[in-house]
Amino acid sequence: MEGVRPGPRNDLTDVAGIAVGHHHRRGRGWLTGTTVVRTPLGTVGSVDVRGGGPATRETDALAPDTLVQDVDAICLSGGSAYGLDAASGVMAVLAEAERGFRVGAEPGRVVPIVPAAALFDLGVGGRFDLRPDASFGRRAAEAARPRTFALGNVGAGAGATAGVLKGGLGAASAVADGHGCTVAALVALNPAGSPVDPATGRLWAVDRLLPGDAPRLRTPLRSEVAAHRAARDEARRAPFNTSLVVVATDALLTKAECHRLAVAGHDGLARAVDPIHGYVDGDVVFALATGGRGLPAGVEHGPPRPAGDRLVELSGLGAMAADVVARAVVRATLAAEAAAGRPSYRDAFPSALRSRS
Amino acid sequence: MEGVRPGPRNDLTDVAGIAVGHHHRRGRGWLTGTTVVRTPLGTVGSVDVRGGGPATRETDALAPDTLVQDVDAICLSGGSAYGLDAASGVMAVLAEAERGFRVGAEPGRVVPIVPAAALFDLGVGGRFDLRPDASFGRRAAEAARPRTFALGNVGAGAGATAGVLKGGLGAASAVADGHGCTVAALVALNPAGSPVDPATGRLWAVDRLLPGDAPRLRTPLRSEVAAHRAARDEARRAPFNTSLVVVATDALLTKAECHRLAVAGHDGLARAVDPIHGYVDGDVVFALATGGRGLPAGVEHGPPRPAGDRLVELSGLGAMAADVVARAVVRATLAAEAAAGRPSYRDAFPSALRSRS
Repeated sequence: MEGVRPGPRNDLTDVAGIAVGHHHRRGRGWLTGTTVVRTPLGTVGSVDVRGGGPATRETDALAPDTLVQDVDAICLSGGSAYGLDAASGVMAVLAEAERGFRVGAEPGRVVPIVPAAALFDLGVGGRFDLRPDASFGRRAAEAARPRTFALGNVGAGAGATAGVLKGGLGAASAVADGHGCTVAALVALNPAGSPVDPATGRLWAVDRLLPGDAPRLRTPLRSEVAAHRAARDEARRAPFNTSLVVVATDALLTKAECHRLAVAGHDGLARAVDPIHGYVDGDVVFALATGGRGLPAGVEHGPPRPAGDRLVELSGLGAMAADVVARAVVRATLAAEAAAGRPSYRDAFPSALRSRS
Repeated sequence: MEGVRPGPRNDLTDVAGIAVGHHHRRGRGWLTGTTVVRTPLGTVGSVDVRGGGPATRETDALAPDTLVQDVDAICLSGGSAYGLDAASGVMAVLAEAERGFRVGAEPGRVVPIVPAAALFDLGVGGRFDLRPDASFGRRAAEAARPRTFALGNVGAGAGATAGVLKGGLGAASAVADGHGCTVAALVALNPAGSPVDPATGRLWAVDRLLPGDAPRLRTPLRSEVAAHRAARDEARRAPFNTSLVVVATDALLTKAECHRLAVAGHDGLARAVDPIHGYVDGDVVFALATGGRGLPAGVEHGPPRPAGDRLVELSGLGAMAADVVARAVVRATLAAEAAAGRPSYRDAFPSALRSRS
């Protein structure tokens, strides 16, 4: 994408005020976790659910026309619908800090707004009954910091798979050269489909990478491609899946405009994973706008139908959102490490990462 | 409504296989609770969210086009978004019984589908921080029986208010004389608006009652109407609200057809409460179709666009759904008892219930 560059950390925390924390457990039957995104005050949120098997909480409150405008945190988790309990621990942490939608004059009278979604990783670690609960949400929320965070087999991506490969957590960011707004994405990559083109072994979205996103990737050896295709044919894949995304920007958007960022985020998934949005995927994209920067078109609080320059800028933000999601998918795939009997992309295609001699 | 009669219990359990349980706490700062509706196997579910401030969980899974068709239970709760935790306890009870969406061949590999919604009663009992948690859902689910249940200040209606009056839990059912299908509703009535016409003191939906729904209601005395209007003008009303509804039928419906029942249920709320569906109401109607009876039009598994006789019958079910919801609102209002400084309708309008001498 022209006219943009990765932000300094190349992750969601390049949007000022956004903090990210993970909590996960691995071993003794465990392989799952939770990732929490905490927001600065006044962050508007929206969501777009396009998967066929979603597990969600508090998404109706994000409809463009409802009372609540601000989002206090987003909670992504493994554990399928059971893992929605993690949001309870996030709410508790926020309520203790008196952060939330104010419902009374007395101190502490708040209801934290914590939309949540879960992906299917039940049994991946060996035990079906070990999954995130409220303590995972609490610990991930307490761990959240406004600085760079680990990628790969961490947080909500700990038990994630991607076709026959290990999935995981990825992130990327972009800063527009013109108006200077940042758009960033965090992805817990756990699709039924694959981020890899089986014909070539190349990552579907590899050409969308920006300088600094990843080591220079080579077209894999034919022998690796053949082995990967054989593994695909033989594999007993995870029967249920789901990729979860948070897109964030520092642009000042209305809730309805924010929804268009979530819509665009799904296009990034579509470009980076094939197939996507199936019946056994519960793909959800949340979008957050912290409002730290007005778009330069001048109309900071846009009318319901933005016109003129603002429309151009909003469209540009959408294109940025799609691209950061696609890049975050690639980075999740490259950061993942072999686990639960699944090789990483690096394991399956070592030639792709071999430096030229 | 012509051509229908109340079912034998005049509540949601007149739909064969439906079980209802409450758990609530009152006193020492508590006044809140949870109501769980458990379903027979193969029950299809849908939802329609029309309030401006919803608190929900697992509603996206009920979209007409998603993978999951069957609903294992519905969880209604006080406690605003905090109260969504009650669903966790319901899931636990169902998982222990191996009831849920099957995600693996081994025993116990299920994910129970428990859509949930919460109403705002925070602080009504005196303490803001006492609200339903997973233990409420567990206990309500364990208490669920396929027989008649208490109305009034119970379950999710324990802390409910209705304008300046005490709200509560109501129910009603209808059996069609023709095809014999049952449609029933359960309502946790907690609106910002009122079930009472302030000009007359009559309940907005009183004329929709069927014989046996309630004692014969008289037009209240003018002095009571004047006192009620004065109370309305002076009252510091609950700032946030929400009415929650479950409509159920034994008709065999597709998930999309089931959605139309939820839509119709909101019309019942609109006729029985004024105003309704405001920004501070998070009104949600869930709809369940157990499939115990085929509609007599013959096409049991309807095509996406039902035609001919089936369309007539489906429209009839919708009209029944709207009416049972309106009747359930009236019955909730009459069953409620004074609490938390709010009089019941019976307290405010004793002349309405006085038998003719």
